[in-house]
Amino acid sequence: MHYNTQKIKSCAKLMGKHLTKRAEDYSKWYNELVVKADLAETSAVRGCMVIKPYGYAIWERMQAILDKRFKETGHSNAYFPLFVPKSLFEAEEQNAEGFAKECAVVTHYRLENDPDKPGKLRVDPKAKLEEELIVRPTSEAIIWNTYKNWIQSYRDLPILLNQWANVVRWEMRTRLFLRTAEFLWQEGHTAHATEAEALAEAKQMNQVYADFVEQHMAIPVIQGVKSAAERFAGAVETYCIEALMQDGKALQAGTSHFLGQNFAKAFDVKYATKEGGLEHVWATSWGVSTRLMGALIMTHSDDNGLVLPPTLAPHQVVIVPIYRGEEEQKLVFEAVAPIVEALRKEDIRVHFDSRDTHKPGFKFNEYELKGVPLRIGIGPRDVANGTVELARRDTLSKSSVALEDLVAEVKTTLAAIQVALFDRAKDYRTQHTTAVDDFDAFKEVLASKGGFVAAHWDGTAETESAIKEATKATIRCIPIDGKTEKGSCVYSGKPSNQRVLFAKAY
Amino acid sequence: MHYNTQKIKSCAKLMGKHLTKRAEDYSKWYNELVVKADLAETSAVRGCMVIKPYGYAIWERMQAILDKRFKETGHSNAYFPLFVPKSLFEAEEQNAEGFAKECAVVTHYRLENDPDKPGKLRVDPKAKLEEELIVRPTSEAIIWNTYKNWIQSYRDLPILLNQWANVVRWEMRTRLFLRTAEFLWQEGHTAHATEAEALAEAKQMNQVYADFVEQHMAIPVIQGVKSAAERFAGAVETYCIEALMQDGKALQAGTSHFLGQNFAKAFDVKYATKEGGLEHVWATSWGVSTRLMGALIMTHSDDNGLVLPPTLAPHQVVIVPIYRGEEEQKLVFEAVAPIVEALRKEDIRVHFDSRDTHKPGFKFNEYELKGVPLRIGIGPRDVANGTVELARRDTLSKSSVALEDLVAEVKTTLAAIQVALFDRAKDYRTQHTTAVDDFDAFKEVLASKGGFVAAHWDGTAETESAIKEATKATIRCIPIDGKTEKGSCVYSGKPSNQRVLFAKAY
Repeated sequence: MHYNTQKIKSCAKLMGKHLTKRAEDYSKWYNELVVKADLAETSAVRGCMVIKPYGYAIWERMQAILDKRFKETGHSNAYFPLFVPKSLFEAEEQNAEGFAKECAVVTHYRLENDPDKPGKLRVDPKAKLEEELIVRPTSEAIIWNTYKNWIQSYRDLPILLNQWANVVRWEMRTRLFLRTAEFLWQEGHTAHATEAEALAEAKQMNQVYADFVEQHMAIPVIQGVKSAAERFAGAVETYCIEALMQDGKALQAGTSHFLGQNFAKAFDVKYATKEGGLEHVWATSWGVSTRLMGALIMTHSDDNGLVLPPTLAPHQVVIVPIYRGEEEQKLVFEAVAPIVEALRKEDIRVHFDSRDTHKPGFKFNEYELKGVPLRIGIGPRDVANGTVELARRDTLSKSSVALEDLVAEVKTTLAAIQVALFDRAKDYRTQHTTAVDDFDAFKEVLASKGGFVAAHWDGTAETESAIKEATKATIRCIPIDGKTEKGSCVYSGKPSNQRVLFAKAY
Repeated sequence: MHYNTQKIKSCAKLMGKHLTKRAEDYSKWYNELVVKADLAETSAVRGCMVIKPYGYAIWERMQAILDKRFKETGHSNAYFPLFVPKSLFEAEEQNAEGFAKECAVVTHYRLENDPDKPGKLRVDPKAKLEEELIVRPTSEAIIWNTYKNWIQSYRDLPILLNQWANVVRWEMRTRLFLRTAEFLWQEGHTAHATEAEALAEAKQMNQVYADFVEQHMAIPVIQGVKSAAERFAGAVETYCIEALMQDGKALQAGTSHFLGQNFAKAFDVKYATKEGGLEHVWATSWGVSTRLMGALIMTHSDDNGLVLPPTLAPHQVVIVPIYRGEEEQKLVFEAVAPIVEALRKEDIRVHFDSRDTHKPGFKFNEYELKGVPLRIGIGPRDVANGTVELARRDTLSKSSVALEDLVAEVKTTLAAIQVALFDRAKDYRTQHTTAVDDFDAFKEVLASKGGFVAAHWDGTAETESAIKEATKATIRCIPIDGKTEKGSCVYSGKPSNQRVLFAKAY
């Protein structure tokens, strides 16, 4: 017993009890939480992360739901090479310029023994590649070079593909999930006969992202288009979904690009039309990444640790048995078995923590830290009364539930948590979206409460840049359902027809 | 009509009709088949392939089944970095030596505008990495460097992880799926307190592979261990499953390595034992890759194209409507709708090819080439008779089936095809496994019929190497359920206790 007590204390210290409070240092809270909740950690490779099993299990659930949705909207998965030869990489100039500054370059294909250092290796200078290979930061170039051979006539269109892959962007300042040198994502790449069809596709996929993030991640988003300065390198229009984190900073959760004919022109991809003409193909690309994990963590979690929406939680319910001695253990375990079975039958992801090496208090802390939506506590007295204790992670509220009502209560409560998380995040966003009409108010709001600032903008890159310089806020998006409204630019005073959303952003 | 006829002719030419025959040139047949059945193609990057949607759909099915099995055996997925710093790469010497000759090396992290060539980019010499990064050829090094921080005591063990990832090995001679510079795979990496537990894990995962390949891919395999020369670089023992292709060459379909304490020693990973000691951790790693796609294609396919086992076929059944004119079309389509519904209800993956741009003959060829296990043809006369034509891809046999028996008949036939493919492959292997007792017979069998040659071997690397030199055959494995039997080495005449399997191999 002595040993266990010591262990619980020392472990509790490592865990939730000593998580930095959000109000103290939000950024530190985030970094600690990611590590302590076993989601991810930094690796020996600068800027690259290790996604730990618990974090990866959440990502897998996100993948499964998105993948299903992509297939329902007519897309298939495929796989294209990790490397992009330099000559292809530079073909679409805007795209190349956008990514050239931050890409990993393979120059050699062999190591050799280092003659000066026994047991060590060095790059073999004889194994220099004729043409350097760029580790893909995004795959438009390699994919459009492939599509060139797949597309001859209108009958070959549309092509609706997606790939799940790793990409590398050599970011200088990295943060787990939010900005890493290597990250995991999906990238859709579609080819169409007409501009209208490509535009519809780009909008559709932005809508798919919005639905996923709102319904499954319980994060409200604003759909909009990016200003020219914030657009994807090589896109004609970038649709996006923007979310607001608890520290008042915005996070771009997904983007869907209408690429026009830029890549078709760069790679000379034309199709024979029905009417016998020859036209360049229209394109889209769209992606979400492991960055969504950052959004998930920052939107819902609290000072006790992670809070997960039930649809994405690897364990929706955890059962912690409470007992002293073998007799009580047997009694409690026997009562737990049918509960597990009944919940599983309803496709509820339940985990029974039967470990005898850890005390209930330790387990309570652990699952609080890991954000399991519902915890069932059950001891001998509960067994005698035919009840269990049901605890909600989001509200930290507890209630006693009769065994015969448990399955129904769990289902209802899981659904209620999903809604409550979304509503709470939406309330926060509503409270942190402020319309302002002069630049002093603009600065004041950003400095005091943060969040989205809805302001008129004259549409010029100069003003956008000057505002960013002065406040660090950027245009997050021009909302697509924003109402038109006459006004004057908050910075230049020039006329404007619509408010756009500014914010400091991740 | 004129147009369609022309198209069918020209397309048919591109497709099955002109596939090289296996007997003419097996290797050419394979290469053509992979491309023409829309499985994969070469890319602009030397040795890297594009996995096309149809090929990827088969890989996705393989992934799903394996992933489920890994989870059932207690493993979780995680993700580790793509790059391995050179200093980690070289830590386990055998492993480093094994892969140093064929690895892609990242030396720079930025491109810049080429001052001599406007619009072109070049590697920025100022952006040279202090330490080179190796694109992972396998992840033992980066993972064991991580496990080092995860493992302190016996309570942290075992660690049972898997990752789905891309890896790069700079092969000089590449072939689609069989040997590519970049390939997709899964790699399991486990850490254990005891040698016995690690050994049991390595054997268990080899068994998981054997079961998967036999039950789902319908490919019979021999389980065995590798000779020292053929062992994974860094392993103490390599378990493997070996399959036999239709040209008499063997293919290593999966490997599971008992790594002993090699990586724990290289990365200094020790754990506190229950008894208060400090021991190095025991390890395994195991993997299968997109190479399995090559095995699948080569085991079952014929001169008409791909043949897929029903469990892995993206479409298990295709329905091709046969009609002339709108009235017949309407009649036939109305008859097809309930068939599709009834099959889907039974979880049968059915595809109704309703395209009006292609004739039935074209479609028949296409699905034959793509290996769809069952084809249902239905025309107005069938509708009138209440029957359909059911065609098996494996035997090319056709039968008329009454509509009311169709679902049951489809289910029975799919199951029968799965069994028939396995049995056919097993018969082939039995016929092409030859016990020989002298070296002349050994050479003669290899030259005439190929396949596995079961022969006594004296256990030395010298003999193994001499036999390879003389015949190009290698020891594929020492079968784990091979009976012991006194004999003399087929090459040296020295005593031996067990026959081992030799073959030329992919």
